[in-house]
Amino acid sequence: MSEGSSQLEIPFTLVVRAPDEPGILHKLTGVIFEHQANITYIDISERRGGECTIYFELEELSSPEVLVEDLRALPIVREVERAPSFAKVYGKRIIVIGGGAQVGQVVVGAVAEADRHNIRGERISVDTIPLVGEENLAAAVRAVARLPRAVALVLAGALMGGDVAEAVYEIRERGIIVLSLNMAGSVPEAADLVVTDPVQCGVMAVMAVSSSARFDINRQRGRRY
Amino acid sequence: MSEGSSQLEIPFTLVVRAPDEPGILHKLTGVIFEHQANITYIDISERRGGECTIYFELEELSSPEVLVEDLRALPIVREVERAPSFAKVYGKRIIVIGGGAQVGQVVVGAVAEADRHNIRGERISVDTIPLVGEENLAAAVRAVARLPRAVALVLAGALMGGDVAEAVYEIRERGIIVLSLNMAGSVPEAADLVVTDPVQCGVMAVMAVSSSARFDINRQRGRRY
Repeated sequence: MSEGSSQLEIPFTLVVRAPDEPGILHKLTGVIFEHQANITYIDISERRGGECTIYFELEELSSPEVLVEDLRALPIVREVERAPSFAKVYGKRIIVIGGGAQVGQVVVGAVAEADRHNIRGERISVDTIPLVGEENLAAAVRAVARLPRAVALVLAGALMGGDVAEAVYEIRERGIIVLSLNMAGSVPEAADLVVTDPVQCGVMAVMAVSSSARFDINRQRGRRY
Repeated sequence: MSEGSSQLEIPFTLVVRAPDEPGILHKLTGVIFEHQANITYIDISERRGGECTIYFELEELSSPEVLVEDLRALPIVREVERAPSFAKVYGKRIIVIGGGAQVGQVVVGAVAEADRHNIRGERISVDTIPLVGEENLAAAVRAVARLPRAVALVLAGALMGGDVAEAVYEIRERGIIVLSLNMAGSVPEAADLVVTDPVQCGVMAVMAVSSSARFDINRQRGRRY
């Protein structure tokens, strides 16, 4: 599927309850494949009492009602429901990683700015994890590229470098926008944009990913504020 | 899988790159099923250039190396890599939903407290979305029960009720701990715990989900601070 179509098409979403055992996903995806639908997002959200909840987003589905019937006809399926897509509910994600004091201030800025965009119909979430240590930070930075709906990362600390900077270069290659506070170490050099004030850094991160703001990260790349 | 074993076992994690087209997941899960492994988490994180990245966490896998070889042998598979699990990197998630001003202050408290726990080896993330409107809020609250690794929700606003309170009762049934600021509307009555100061509310949310804190939500249920 081309990216263009996946951006425009509203996915068909399903929540399926089934036993938590090997082979379940293979059976469910077999029925979905018979309908020639493309699975654009999937996750397993709940596992308890020997059951699990599997969430699907599907595109190119011609007969949604028939698919639901076919899934219900599987002996393993306990329940099939519709649900709004995470993209519609939570939208794009900005991830803030670093020391607690600075992460908190970046989020104050980012959430206040996201609020203004979300009131006008956008959906921007701000997700955080306070962490210390080069190894922990580098692993968390690399994992951002695997997080569903993540579009930007803010590194909020006083000293970050070494493998964390390497990880920043890697995820920028994969399309993630990276902002850094002005800090010691090699991370600011590796980032797209460096901002000294944490509240403003949070605001700028939201402006950089918003579809309604005039802020263009391509014009700001390499700058320091 | 019993819940007990799934909590203790460290999952085997894999990242697979393959074409973004119908039938891919069915083929991959077929190979995993042949190994009798249980898929405990899965998501599709990246879709671009006609390819997608699929992330798996597996349990009860006897020969990980053979599985990796068998997956690589599929003509559709472009790349197979190991990766650390999201549970190990980002851990439990607390979700904060509401008005921007108040969400920001709750996160200042929650991130500062999570920092203290994460320094000692725990992993607690704080994720937010600023939103207004009963319908938007109720949809976001219901979606928390479907979010991977979400354990608690903080509702941070000045007036919430109606269908939002209904949604709170629903997700509490599904094991999510709900904290509310002291506010107008019926949400505080529906929550596990009500806290007036937003910073303290964020701190208490982290204490409630931490495995090292002495704070017991069962003893606090129904209280107001």
